[in-house]
Amino acid sequence: MAKTEEINLKEFWDGFNKGDWQEEIDIRDFIQHNYTQYEGDESFLAGPTDATTTLNDQLMDLKKKEREAGGVLDADNDIPATVISHGPGYLNKDLEKIVGLQTDAPLKRAFMPFGGIRMAEDALEAYGYKVDPTQHKIFTEYRKTHNQGVFDAYTPDMRKARHFKIITGLPDAYARGRIIPDLPRIAVYGIDRLAAEKFSDFDNIGDGEMTDDVIQLREEINEQYRALQDMKKMAASYGFDISKPAQNAQEAIQWIYFGYLAAIKTQNGAAMSVGRIDTTMDIFIQRDLDRGLITEEQAQEMVDHFVMKLRMVRFIRTEDYNSLFSGDPIWATLSMCGIGMDGRHHVTKTAFRVLKTLENMGAAPEPNITLLWSDRLPEGFKRYATEVSIKSSTIQYENDDLMRNQWGTDYYGIACCVSAQPIATGVQYFGARANLAKTILYAINGGVDELAKKQVGPAYEPISSDIIDYKEFMGKYDKMLDWLADIYVNTLNTIHYMHDKYYYESAQLALKNSRLDRTFATGISGLSHAVDSISAIKYGQVKVIRDEDGMAIDFEAQNPDYPRYGNNDDRADDIAKWLVKTFYNKMNTHHLYRGSKLSTSVLTITSNVVYGKNTGTTPNGRQAGEPFSPGANPAYGAEKNGALASLLSTAKIPYRYATDGISNTFGVTPNTLGHDDNARKDALVNMVDGYMTNQGMHLNINVFNKQTLMDAQKHPEEYPTLTVRVSGYCVYFADLTKEQQDDVISRTFFDEM
Amino acid sequence: MAKTEEINLKEFWDGFNKGDWQEEIDIRDFIQHNYTQYEGDESFLAGPTDATTTLNDQLMDLKKKEREAGGVLDADNDIPATVISHGPGYLNKDLEKIVGLQTDAPLKRAFMPFGGIRMAEDALEAYGYKVDPTQHKIFTEYRKTHNQGVFDAYTPDMRKARHFKIITGLPDAYARGRIIPDLPRIAVYGIDRLAAEKFSDFDNIGDGEMTDDVIQLREEINEQYRALQDMKKMAASYGFDISKPAQNAQEAIQWIYFGYLAAIKTQNGAAMSVGRIDTTMDIFIQRDLDRGLITEEQAQEMVDHFVMKLRMVRFIRTEDYNSLFSGDPIWATLSMCGIGMDGRHHVTKTAFRVLKTLENMGAAPEPNITLLWSDRLPEGFKRYATEVSIKSSTIQYENDDLMRNQWGTDYYGIACCVSAQPIATGVQYFGARANLAKTILYAINGGVDELAKKQVGPAYEPISSDIIDYKEFMGKYDKMLDWLADIYVNTLNTIHYMHDKYYYESAQLALKNSRLDRTFATGISGLSHAVDSISAIKYGQVKVIRDEDGMAIDFEAQNPDYPRYGNNDDRADDIAKWLVKTFYNKMNTHHLYRGSKLSTSVLTITSNVVYGKNTGTTPNGRQAGEPFSPGANPAYGAEKNGALASLLSTAKIPYRYATDGISNTFGVTPNTLGHDDNARKDALVNMVDGYMTNQGMHLNINVFNKQTLMDAQKHPEEYPTLTVRVSGYCVYFADLTKEQQDDVISRTFFDEM
Repeated sequence: MAKTEEINLKEFWDGFNKGDWQEEIDIRDFIQHNYTQYEGDESFLAGPTDATTTLNDQLMDLKKKEREAGGVLDADNDIPATVISHGPGYLNKDLEKIVGLQTDAPLKRAFMPFGGIRMAEDALEAYGYKVDPTQHKIFTEYRKTHNQGVFDAYTPDMRKARHFKIITGLPDAYARGRIIPDLPRIAVYGIDRLAAEKFSDFDNIGDGEMTDDVIQLREEINEQYRALQDMKKMAASYGFDISKPAQNAQEAIQWIYFGYLAAIKTQNGAAMSVGRIDTTMDIFIQRDLDRGLITEEQAQEMVDHFVMKLRMVRFIRTEDYNSLFSGDPIWATLSMCGIGMDGRHHVTKTAFRVLKTLENMGAAPEPNITLLWSDRLPEGFKRYATEVSIKSSTIQYENDDLMRNQWGTDYYGIACCVSAQPIATGVQYFGARANLAKTILYAINGGVDELAKKQVGPAYEPISSDIIDYKEFMGKYDKMLDWLADIYVNTLNTIHYMHDKYYYESAQLALKNSRLDRTFATGISGLSHAVDSISAIKYGQVKVIRDEDGMAIDFEAQNPDYPRYGNNDDRADDIAKWLVKTFYNKMNTHHLYRGSKLSTSVLTITSNVVYGKNTGTTPNGRQAGEPFSPGANPAYGAEKNGALASLLSTAKIPYRYATDGISNTFGVTPNTLGHDDNARKDALVNMVDGYMTNQGMHLNINVFNKQTLMDAQKHPEEYPTLTVRVSGYCVYFADLTKEQQDDVISRTFFDEM
Repeated sequence: MAKTEEINLKEFWDGFNKGDWQEEIDIRDFIQHNYTQYEGDESFLAGPTDATTTLNDQLMDLKKKEREAGGVLDADNDIPATVISHGPGYLNKDLEKIVGLQTDAPLKRAFMPFGGIRMAEDALEAYGYKVDPTQHKIFTEYRKTHNQGVFDAYTPDMRKARHFKIITGLPDAYARGRIIPDLPRIAVYGIDRLAAEKFSDFDNIGDGEMTDDVIQLREEINEQYRALQDMKKMAASYGFDISKPAQNAQEAIQWIYFGYLAAIKTQNGAAMSVGRIDTTMDIFIQRDLDRGLITEEQAQEMVDHFVMKLRMVRFIRTEDYNSLFSGDPIWATLSMCGIGMDGRHHVTKTAFRVLKTLENMGAAPEPNITLLWSDRLPEGFKRYATEVSIKSSTIQYENDDLMRNQWGTDYYGIACCVSAQPIATGVQYFGARANLAKTILYAINGGVDELAKKQVGPAYEPISSDIIDYKEFMGKYDKMLDWLADIYVNTLNTIHYMHDKYYYESAQLALKNSRLDRTFATGISGLSHAVDSISAIKYGQVKVIRDEDGMAIDFEAQNPDYPRYGNNDDRADDIAKWLVKTFYNKMNTHHLYRGSKLSTSVLTITSNVVYGKNTGTTPNGRQAGEPFSPGANPAYGAEKNGALASLLSTAKIPYRYATDGISNTFGVTPNTLGHDDNARKDALVNMVDGYMTNQGMHLNINVFNKQTLMDAQKHPEEYPTLTVRVSGYCVYFADLTKEQQDDVISRTFFDEM
């Protein structure tokens, strides 16, 4: 690390309003002093340029070829991906306004062994590639991977809990992802200023007493510093000097993209989110517009091309992984809008421009467009957003008022589906999910796995009575949750220790503050089934049906009209609140890596299908192998009182105990919303406003007739860009597995509010 | 890690006495139940076999070629050394009773980049080799090294302290070494039993709460387990199955050597010590002798061939390193004898056999033979040992009574020169040395380096008076020692954190207990000059001579007869005690890596020459650049009262504050000892006994006339195996630099006791 000369950035900032951001690295302050609110409607927007259409056609053609090739167009097998491992690559150099690829060719997947060489090899082999033997040798004999580290420390109990899928989706063989870089920093400050800040931070970490935490952070800042230098080299290979701030909008967007590109070149997390970039982009665009340097068409073109780049991000995955998360999602989540701490909304023209990309280039799952919603957002924007939802079901809505209060800042973004993260000052350690529905069965069966018939949890006495006694059950469930919380949190402690050791995210963290508030994320799956099962046991007189081994394999509620979660019935909904809070508190008794703060989520993405597959019949009547309802959604068929009652139930889950997010995937038929476009928009705006003012946290909105989906399943060729929102991301319907399509079809599509 | 089947070892242990060692891994218990004391003299010993002589001639020839080739015969540049990186290699397969080389050819040096790729490259380049570019890429882009890690965390102040050599010899670019494996474990138990123990230990590390320390230790035990498996593979490549215990003496010695070979194949520490192996070897040899399977000639041949292997160990080093430690020393320290906790001495015939190797194959610097001395050792052995000393000056003597009491065990060994380490239960983190004499000058000059004229220490006010006021000086020295202790200990904290992270000693630690008492070693250089300088200031009215910058560059004691350390004068010796104790206590205020316990040493090896070169004129009259006296030795010329007074001064340094060892290098002319062999042996035995009963810790004994050395400097060809003991190791006189030879010559050779 070398101290850089004093840099005079003032000349680059001509036209911007002054503020603390000129002295301190502070994008939020830059935004607050410089952004232009937009109150109007979408009428100003421009369509695609010829270049955009040509490029998009090229991309669609490549995607077609990719699908025809079995899912992967091409893949590296001998170049471990680093920020500077590849020379420049283009889709069409002459037309692209924003450039940069993960490898040297579009859709060609990189070789990423640092998370786990076996995972990388399996992924390559799944598509007919074979890893280069030298690389195998390097990453088995000389360079240990995250995956090897984790398995070197796991206890046998952890392996078991993982193997029998009471804990699932752990990031122990690839990157944990979820870390949102503060990308606008590159555009506003340039790399050299950021590197100088890291140099100064390094100087001020610790008073010289070299405890492990001080040493670790000092080394990390050095890694970050190197990553910044590599970003400069990478940009230079494309002909750009990002050492200094961007001089115009095109550079600003390009600089931002280079920062993101560094992240996706080096890390293959499930979620590689983009964060909050729309306002900064807008400030640069507006300055260029004001200076008469560009037209609206050119502004839109840059945004289109940037978004197109996000649509091209690829990682190579194993079959197992793909069965969990279909359709190559990468959660390039773009979080937009919201209300500032000062009460001003953050809707700019660029928020419109980003939504417009869905029209200019067709619907697409990525980027994962996320609106930070408040009823105080301007009507023009609200209506345009809902129009996009109705047309393409591609966007999600999250409660900005809730999140801003919880996190104490308006400069946060969404990582993955629903997980808020302060962009400059916070980081999240991703933690997958524990299966609370399966835990119900462990409590009943004395820790024996109901499918494998192996002792997995602690061998407490099983329930042996005919009818399950509520008090007895709750005592056992409480103990089983203790066990689960313990093993889950400590598995994650192991993962994060090793991830920092073997697969540190230097490029992403280089674009954040050096001292961060750390969040230890965890997650709950099977909430609705756990809740309804408890309610069944409490109110429904559940009789156990056992197999020849005495294992509970089915259940009969003698009183089938017990309360169910999803009907705005406090008897069931209180159980949901109790369960989230109880599991959170149990997890919170444990040591958490690096002094991080516990958060949990109720979200499942498409993995609700796999979770269900690995869980026996539950006391609420859900049959063995049947999908769970996604995220915090009520169980399919449990909702009897219409859409609003269902939403009100979900909204009761206390966000302060589930700050990693509470996901609700909502389906409604167009006609339920209204009989013309205007009425539908009104209804949707009202619904989202209502949900959010009732403390609802997140809403995926799908507007379909079930019939459309059934038709698309039969005739996929007729619906090439039909996108649906599953729990937390958006996906081409055609990219889902048959099982997952069935699941989406079987979900409740409300036909009454 | 996989659990191995229950192993029945009883059949291998036929002929051994039962004990706890059969249930627990406990070599000490095995020894105590099975060894045969020997009270006689050396008359039973056998000379070299023809095979030994042939092999030794071959080796001497190779050494000659090595010297002719500029110091390195051959070197790898493209195979990072691991336990299994090389196929088998031989000196002469048909004749060798004990086999195994670091690489595939004798004296060919391995490529060891894990400690630091630049160091490895510099070392290769120093001898005209160039590292393979692929290896450079691997160890700069994919596999971080210890050296890179350390420099990523160092503070600028640490770099400065290192650069200006107030702290010297830090193991931050190669292995820290010093870790003594419990090698006899392989012979007695075989690898499978050891691996099973590690498996069980792994199961019992932590209660499932994954704090960083638990995760770290679990991962390490897994690394150890893998190292054990690799040792089996390596042995198999030589045609041996070390999964089971050794069945005879040859196997026992071979198994022990394979364990050591694993260490020197993977780690390139300055000191790669062998530990305590003589008694275990003796037990196996005695069993074979008792069974009539071998003769004494055959027993001696195995010991000779084992020792020959230790003479062949090589590492490739940089020029800088070689100027610090001349003559390719590796401190293959063999610690022998001592008295057991039960009062029985540990002298066996094999201790004699090891000494006999010096006769059978000529004197040689390695292994570094170290006698754990007590006046209770049998006379026959004592006299034989001193005879060897008189003939070849190759052995060192250390105070077993002192060490056994301090460390609470008789099963300890010496790492490097003088540093005791419990072999089964303890580990040392090596820590080089801080220059306390130079610190005197920093105190006088306000933290400005007297040679570089740069501010290195804190900028306290310099001493400005003409005559140094003792009280003022002591206040300033105290503050400067505070600073030095702080920066020194924390530099070491950084080193050990990174060493565990990037260059963990899995092979050595696999052969120790999983839970270890850790010692945080530090060291003092320039003790005598610091002490005499303080005494001069206190008693001698020291006048400062300053240059044009006001820097103190010379000193004049107005009263030159101030007390000096080395004359058994408490006025000076108390300063030495005070200084060691004070610096220890200051270091001990700090955080010490992994809860280790502080130790310090007063030893310098040949580096006293380099330390002196980097230190200005000191108030005791030592001129700028002149070598320090080695270790705890009095300053050259300071001793006025003969050998015994000198030794008594050194013996006063309290071992409890310097448990890493207090080295004394003692030179005496043959005639001073006596006028015939018998008288000389008597005198030497008496002297060592006397020194040790007076709490003296360590003694290198050189018996020469200064004239011999001066002659050897002029006519090296006439003295090819002339060995001398420098502070803590033994070296061919011819292998020393001219400066170092001059230093050895200028040392005091007492001509009166």
